[in-house]
Amino acid sequence: MSKPEKIRISADALRDMVRAMFEKLGTSTQDAATVANALVWANLRGVDSHGISRIPRYVEMFESGEAKARPAMQVAYPRPALVTIDADGAPGPVAMHRAASEAIALGRKTGVALAAVRGTVHTGAIGHYVGEIADADLIGIGLVAGVPNMAYAGSNVAGVATSPIAIAVPSARHGTVLLDMATAVIALGKIAQFRQSGTPLEPGMALTEAGEPTTDPALAAIPLPVGGAKGSGLSLMIELLTSVLVGNPIVAEFHGDAPHGKRHRQNGTIIAVDIGAFGAVPTFRTTVDTTIDAIKALPHAAGSKEILYPGERGSRTFEERSRRGIPIAPGPWQKLCKDAQKLGVGIPEPVPAG
Amino acid sequence: MSKPEKIRISADALRDMVRAMFEKLGTSTQDAATVANALVWANLRGVDSHGISRIPRYVEMFESGEAKARPAMQVAYPRPALVTIDADGAPGPVAMHRAASEAIALGRKTGVALAAVRGTVHTGAIGHYVGEIADADLIGIGLVAGVPNMAYAGSNVAGVATSPIAIAVPSARHGTVLLDMATAVIALGKIAQFRQSGTPLEPGMALTEAGEPTTDPALAAIPLPVGGAKGSGLSLMIELLTSVLVGNPIVAEFHGDAPHGKRHRQNGTIIAVDIGAFGAVPTFRTTVDTTIDAIKALPHAAGSKEILYPGERGSRTFEERSRRGIPIAPGPWQKLCKDAQKLGVGIPEPVPAG
Repeated sequence: MSKPEKIRISADALRDMVRAMFEKLGTSTQDAATVANALVWANLRGVDSHGISRIPRYVEMFESGEAKARPAMQVAYPRPALVTIDADGAPGPVAMHRAASEAIALGRKTGVALAAVRGTVHTGAIGHYVGEIADADLIGIGLVAGVPNMAYAGSNVAGVATSPIAIAVPSARHGTVLLDMATAVIALGKIAQFRQSGTPLEPGMALTEAGEPTTDPALAAIPLPVGGAKGSGLSLMIELLTSVLVGNPIVAEFHGDAPHGKRHRQNGTIIAVDIGAFGAVPTFRTTVDTTIDAIKALPHAAGSKEILYPGERGSRTFEERSRRGIPIAPGPWQKLCKDAQKLGVGIPEPVPAG
Repeated sequence: MSKPEKIRISADALRDMVRAMFEKLGTSTQDAATVANALVWANLRGVDSHGISRIPRYVEMFESGEAKARPAMQVAYPRPALVTIDADGAPGPVAMHRAASEAIALGRKTGVALAAVRGTVHTGAIGHYVGEIADADLIGIGLVAGVPNMAYAGSNVAGVATSPIAIAVPSARHGTVLLDMATAVIALGKIAQFRQSGTPLEPGMALTEAGEPTTDPALAAIPLPVGGAKGSGLSLMIELLTSVLVGNPIVAEFHGDAPHGKRHRQNGTIIAVDIGAFGAVPTFRTTVDTTIDAIKALPHAAGSKEILYPGERGSRTFEERSRRGIPIAPGPWQKLCKDAQKLGVGIPEPVPAG
């Protein structure tokens, strides 16, 4: 079947449109810019499942009260290298961007700092926040825990979350080396893509709603953990290191009888390590390059065309989409435009094809 | 074929013997106790590949100068929450135990602390050091980078190390929840076990020395990364976060022309997070229990008898071996006794069978 042609919107125009929409939805000008930055960054990197496609869900969450456009975030500093952010249902980008900024500021003083975020929603592509830390010459580590949607090893129901871990390290020539991985074999967003294109999954990727192994993308509902016990163990440790640490347990409440145990919410932990405390930053950046060069020069396995460092594909997509605009399928674009019009926000012109 | 019966040695007797051996090998009384503790801990947990079986290699490394029995470790505090330990070839347990102790002390003041270890050898079972942190009511995170022995995704040679990550969290009823995982599908020690018993590997676990996929344990030489690009990406980030951070790059030098680029060495990073800075520790421990209880009560997948939390199997083995002694096969035991006798160290009596 022939696919309808995607239009392309420039990143700047899309960012302006999203910012205006969030302002109309009630967020402050600054928070609207933060959300627009994070969502459009995900689209620029090619992580379309975490970009502007999330906006309709934000509209819902603001209406239902799951998220707050004007949260009363509480920031505290219980120890010199710690900051806790009670997000009060703030959009993920607002809480996580704040966490990254605080971790950078503290980390520069104490060498390492940890920012713990309690009770936010949809943190999105967490590579964005740790990337901000790398841009400031610190190493960024990010963990996010959410509502269970992945099987725990030995079980066949959604027991833990596909909790991501992201690590960002700055280099000199290779940009930011950025690992951003879910603890699942396959992300839910990717299953949705397989479903749309009718492509079967590989065995060992997912279970049906009833807990049976499947390769049918229409039936796949519960992703399996990467490496079995390793992936689900890592996800569980992320829950302990984020949700339980900030006193907002998700896994325990989800499986218990708490009235709101199954509602959407997320907690996050961000760690920043100040590279300059260990030695000269330019030397560090150059040694990262040398390391990456060594990896890229390794002999190839049969069928492998190129060896990529973590984040390399996303950074190429970023460059290409920054130049040519962000491709959006007509369906989602019309939906977004309709939401924008309802809010009285103007629609940008697509980038001319060619 | 019938296996020769293992003898059992009590943990205390084995610890005394190993301590005495390391003293005779030249280490200080305190360092000898630290090494004995770490090695016997690995045996108690059932990680026999990282226990007393490493002693012959230590003897070699002390002789060759790769490791030093009397290292001049240099400890520095470049920032309030940071400590760097230049290990000067100290045995892994000496450097990593020191790192854990320093991270605990700093972390109690600053909320989070990072200890970076430069230039140690054979860190062994790193769960031990993060477990010490959990015993002190902090969360412990440990990363170790070493000489490449695992394939990087897309390549078919040893490009990066099977670098482990360990996370330890204290609970109230379930002991320490302890994830200690290599970034490989299968550990090299486990391949050796498959080889001894003649059990074929599963497809996707390892390559031959020549870089061909194999399930023959006699030919398996290079383990594959867990989850492909995820496992090898995580290993690479661990190298950047440890080796490159402390200015002792291993991956870059291993693949380069540096004269000692391929010699055995390791770097480690330990992070400690003070639970008490976030709230009451007993509440935290209890919520960890509730979370673990929820996981263990999940419905079972077909063929699954029990759902285990990270470290549960090791903690059962620890309990059983603490009671009944540590089982050692006659071959390795005779080898260890011979080494002990050469050093003038007495041999303990086995625990009576039954």
